[in-house]
Amino acid sequence: MINRRTLIRGGLVAGLASQRILAGNAPSPPGLRRIATEEGFNIPEVARATARILPELVSREPGEAAVFGVDRPRSGDEAPPPWLHQLSDIGAGRIADMDGAGIAMQVLLLSSPGVQMFEAGEARELSQLANDRLADAIRKYPDRFAGLAAIPPQDPAFAARELERAVSKLGLNGAIINSHTGGHYLDEAPYLPILEAAAALEAPIYIHPRAPSPQMVGPYLDYQMVGAIWGYAVEVSAHALRLIFSGVFDRLPKLRIVIGHMGEGIPFFLDRIDTHYAAGAGRGRGSKPLSRPPSEIFRDHFTITTSGMNWGPALRLSLETLGPERVMFAADYPFENARAAVSRIDALGLEPDTLAKLYHRNAERVFRLTARGAGQAK
Amino acid sequence: MINRRTLIRGGLVAGLASQRILAGNAPSPPGLRRIATEEGFNIPEVARATARILPELVSREPGEAAVFGVDRPRSGDEAPPPWLHQLSDIGAGRIADMDGAGIAMQVLLLSSPGVQMFEAGEARELSQLANDRLADAIRKYPDRFAGLAAIPPQDPAFAARELERAVSKLGLNGAIINSHTGGHYLDEAPYLPILEAAAALEAPIYIHPRAPSPQMVGPYLDYQMVGAIWGYAVEVSAHALRLIFSGVFDRLPKLRIVIGHMGEGIPFFLDRIDTHYAAGAGRGRGSKPLSRPPSEIFRDHFTITTSGMNWGPALRLSLETLGPERVMFAADYPFENARAAVSRIDALGLEPDTLAKLYHRNAERVFRLTARGAGQAK
Repeated sequence: MINRRTLIRGGLVAGLASQRILAGNAPSPPGLRRIATEEGFNIPEVARATARILPELVSREPGEAAVFGVDRPRSGDEAPPPWLHQLSDIGAGRIADMDGAGIAMQVLLLSSPGVQMFEAGEARELSQLANDRLADAIRKYPDRFAGLAAIPPQDPAFAARELERAVSKLGLNGAIINSHTGGHYLDEAPYLPILEAAAALEAPIYIHPRAPSPQMVGPYLDYQMVGAIWGYAVEVSAHALRLIFSGVFDRLPKLRIVIGHMGEGIPFFLDRIDTHYAAGAGRGRGSKPLSRPPSEIFRDHFTITTSGMNWGPALRLSLETLGPERVMFAADYPFENARAAVSRIDALGLEPDTLAKLYHRNAERVFRLTARGAGQAK
Repeated sequence: MINRRTLIRGGLVAGLASQRILAGNAPSPPGLRRIATEEGFNIPEVARATARILPELVSREPGEAAVFGVDRPRSGDEAPPPWLHQLSDIGAGRIADMDGAGIAMQVLLLSSPGVQMFEAGEARELSQLANDRLADAIRKYPDRFAGLAAIPPQDPAFAARELERAVSKLGLNGAIINSHTGGHYLDEAPYLPILEAAAALEAPIYIHPRAPSPQMVGPYLDYQMVGAIWGYAVEVSAHALRLIFSGVFDRLPKLRIVIGHMGEGIPFFLDRIDTHYAAGAGRGRGSKPLSRPPSEIFRDHFTITTSGMNWGPALRLSLETLGPERVMFAADYPFENARAAVSRIDALGLEPDTLAKLYHRNAERVFRLTARGAGQAK
């Protein structure tokens, strides 16, 4: 279990010497940029604010309390995880790790759950600060970094304006929302301004995991199943399906969503979802009749990434069922081993055209990276 | 959405003329028996008892209330589903349908949620009655039917005894448990006698879906996502992983579990589950250190069936990751189209040896059907 409490403390530790990986994968072959599309970072101000509210989580957000390890006694000799200081480095150290893994560019996301657990005022301030800091890093390394804006669903009107500022003024490439906000999902009516802004800007929203919402976390609290081992996929898949059945993609044809972890399991179930939608399911409280089968909506409006799931069987199924235009490479740095992620993909013997789409062309299209980075391929 | 309320009423309708399918798939080729391993039936007494408690479900079991359609207004002209009377026929009519689909044998399961919503006394009586009725049908058609015992986890000691009676005296082939019982899972301490009895008898337990438990059904109530379209897989996958992380398979090496719907998504995630178990997840409250990676425990102790998921991409992934010994054919009659299920599998061009394992050899081994039915292959 990834214990993020040490992470929070670690976010405050500046200048800690980093265990960098110096030898690694070969650089991308000429013409094949490897772009990793779900790569985490944090800023000390968000880390500090998160640390402050941790004690509240046990009652308010039991799933997140388990992720951060505040729901159980802690042994004094717990070593800080190796990725602790990597998270707060959006400069030279991170780039050295990217070089070691053969990754040309990272699409950066404020580490989950971002600003979504704070009261609205603090969330507004911290999201602006994180986005400004991210834009600074990208200005400094424009051929190595892109990034998504942190926006606070707690204040939907502000979130829509901040998304516009981030895309139009700061040059960011979309938004990240770490699934539920206080147990609420983006298909609910108050969040429509956020979806409308994303569609109007043609900016994708990355729905990134966090622990399952309080309404469904119960059975995952035992055995510490709340995080990447299972709960994250439960949470984001529910969120994605709620959006589909809500009919919002018929209302906003330009809305585009990205989800990680090989589509959080949805590709495996596309046939069953269609069969039972046709038989009348997915149409209860809150639904609109859909113009197309759910699998078509998924293919038309979602792109998935391979974060934490760079594994042949799941990747081949996803390429087969979604098509090579709908899957993007991601390493989930620094939580997963980026070098292993690249090695495993490289070893699969994919067709060159598929590999180019997976490693960079899809990301260039979805996040509109081409204009800025294409001429500067590593 | 499959509305089971009409089913309950329909369970009371005897002798209703049935829309049987007369033309269908070719019979099994010589030597290739098609055994369908997750096939539903019901008896009028259970249907009546279920109908009686439906009004309580809205507060007690909101997920099941949604499955049965008692949580929302009903239109008067709702046609009864076509499978209504098929469920209560465990004789000639069912066999005609099996012939139409080219299915030699059905493994019968009391329709979900079986006896698990009743108070213990009624659950005890109805489980015995259902098992006796099932054994009668099998005695009448020994080369066409096998079946699993309904047992009530509400009374674990009785459930263990009833499993022994069903296997030793009635000749049944294992047990079915429809996932949670009142929000509780089989890894919890009170249910150990059931798991011990199953291991001692070497009788598999089929963990069949029902709506997600009250602790996690919240986000699935909107849009009617509680059933086969998504909620069933959420519920059973959580149950299966809880059992794995509890360490019970190290304690009971002969315990065998069957889960349907292509492993409820678990095969797609085997690599990620192992990675994060190795990193420390799956070890919280209630866990025991495991002797093997979770994926090995899954391969050693679980067999999956294709019910409702007879679809090439998911089947190929499951065969590749679990091996051809671990996947059994199921049609999920009468809820799914058994003829289409057979046609789709037949069209995949699987190796003859793989096809034989999928269609009958694995079922013969797991449910110990060989002694009784092998010489009488249709």
